[in-house]
Amino acid sequence: MITKQKNKIIVVTGIPGSGKTTILTRAMKHLKTQNINYTHLSFGTEMFEIAKKEGIIKTRDQLRKIDTETQKKIQVKASKQIVKMSKKTNIVFDTHATIKTPKGYLIGFPEWVVKEIRPDILVIMEATPKEIHHRRQNDKTRTRDHETEEAIEEHQMMNRSATIVSGTMSGSTINIIKNRHNKINDAVNELVEVMK
Amino acid sequence: MITKQKNKIIVVTGIPGSGKTTILTRAMKHLKTQNINYTHLSFGTEMFEIAKKEGIIKTRDQLRKIDTETQKKIQVKASKQIVKMSKKTNIVFDTHATIKTPKGYLIGFPEWVVKEIRPDILVIMEATPKEIHHRRQNDKTRTRDHETEEAIEEHQMMNRSATIVSGTMSGSTINIIKNRHNKINDAVNELVEVMK
Amino acid sequence: MITKQKNKIIVVTGIPGSGKTTILTRAMKHLKTQNINYTHLSFGTEMFEIAKKEGIIKTRDQLRKIDTETQKKIQVKASKQIVKMSKKTNIVFDTHATIKTPKGYLIGFPEWVVKEIRPDILVIMEATPKEIHHRRQNDKTRTRDHETEEAIEEHQMMNRSATIVSGTMSGSTINIIKNRHNKINDAVNELVEVMK
Repeated sequence: MITKQKNKIIVVTGIPGSGKTTILTRAMKHLKTQNINYTHLSFGTEMFEIAKKEGIIKTRDQLRKIDTETQKKIQVKASKQIVKMSKKTNIVFDTHATIKTPKGYLIGFPEWVVKEIRPDILVIMEATPKEIHHRRQNDKTRTRDHETEEAIEEHQMMNRSATIVSGTMSGSTINIIKNRHNKINDAVNELVEVMK
Repeated sequence: MITKQKNKIIVVTGIPGSGKTTILTRAMKHLKTQNINYTHLSFGTEMFEIAKKEGIIKTRDQLRKIDTETQKKIQVKASKQIVKMSKKTNIVFDTHATIKTPKGYLIGFPEWVVKEIRPDILVIMEATPKEIHHRRQNDKTRTRDHETEEAIEEHQMMNRSATIVSGTMSGSTINIIKNRHNKINDAVNELVEVMK
Repeated sequence: MITKQKNKIIVVTGIPGSGKTTILTRAMKHLKTQNINYTHLSFGTEMFEIAKKEGIIKTRDQLRKIDTETQKKIQVKASKQIVKMSKKTNIVFDTHATIKTPKGYLIGFPEWVVKEIRPDILVIMEATPKEIHHRRQNDKTRTRDHETEEAIEEHQMMNRSATIVSGTMSGSTINIIKNRHNKINDAVNELVEVMK
């Protein structure tokens, strides 16, 4: 009957330019001062480690070239691995709800992954299309496609839908955080509250 | 081959201030004059009855404190109970597609519930964010958070997505009814048509 | 490890007036000149053929009158049939993500269909509500409901959600193509790229 205190699995999503990585890094630093620690994982890295160990591929670039069925199997194994790790530590992912590819939107967390991991909370980091467009133009470190504001809005809308699907499948709570212009501290504080 | 005449299960959703309870009450009264009767259920009450009978909790407030796995089991039992009741009577729920909590949006009808109940129709009662904001401010009987119109719009958008997920899982039809300012009778009539 | 070259299953969706049939026809003609051939199927026809062969119905109109459970079984059989056909040829569907009925939105690809077919790509053909409204008014060959632009926008939004659900269930990539006024060739070229 009593809710057991267990470690959390949190997924932080957001399109490029939403500021999710910056905000997550700050939130984790903040949480550390309160003695709340998270292990920050990348789903891609977990997949690569498994595929390499099983002799399927040698370099990370090859991950994209694996056939669909094998890829699924690796995704499920990586998910089980993550759940196992979560017995020992809080886990946070910094990832994508959908990924824009030349063929269209790829779902970041398909059913077979979501149902294994069953994250406690799915966070969506959002900003206005105008702000994201602006940030992407000023980001000299990456060569990012200069999408229109309309395309950015569409992408964020698709991501909301994608997290709702995951939530219905897994029971995860969905939290939308707005990273507003010049109010990054508000976003950090909101994320800290969610991850507490 | 011939479609069997069977009782209906209808779910009426809508965010606080959408007017769903008022409209549902009027629609049911209207339907009664046409000899169409519905049993009006609350999913929370059904869950509480089961949890109490099984000695898991004593008061309704404790429902929120049950651990996730036990909660799921109770949800599935309540769903089966409802399906059993639907053999004898039409059933209507007045509930939420998503519930706003301090940690984020909680899905009202997760997969394990939707797939048990398989409602015939999922109704979404909507109003403009402006109208909902206005109604909430004038509602002295409840202390409601005064969300911004932007937040209200977001919530309604999330609910649309959530019902689409349920519909894909269960085959339910999704009906959006607009409760427009000073046109409550139109909304009542639309709901009557859906529930007929 | 190596990705096997396999035939594709593509689903092209879009609301009436989006221009999806025109664009698909042109794209297929274009692809043929490049020696890429698709078999163009209708899910309804496949269902009808199965129901007729099994002696359940005689005319296509009766398809709508079959009870839900039998309908589901026919849908699953039609899906398996399509997957079998896809071993020999690329397949493309021209269909609806959701269908507007008097009772509300019906999901075009419910879970039991999507998980059988697992399309490679789900295309959504979109146009502005204004443009769709205009096209529907000028279409003298069909008697179409004259929906408001608001209703058209709602329908397109619901379809985006519906394809995201399918994508999460099946791993399909989702591609939104905008059929902009006087830029039909751009839309055709985009679809050609997707179907290549």
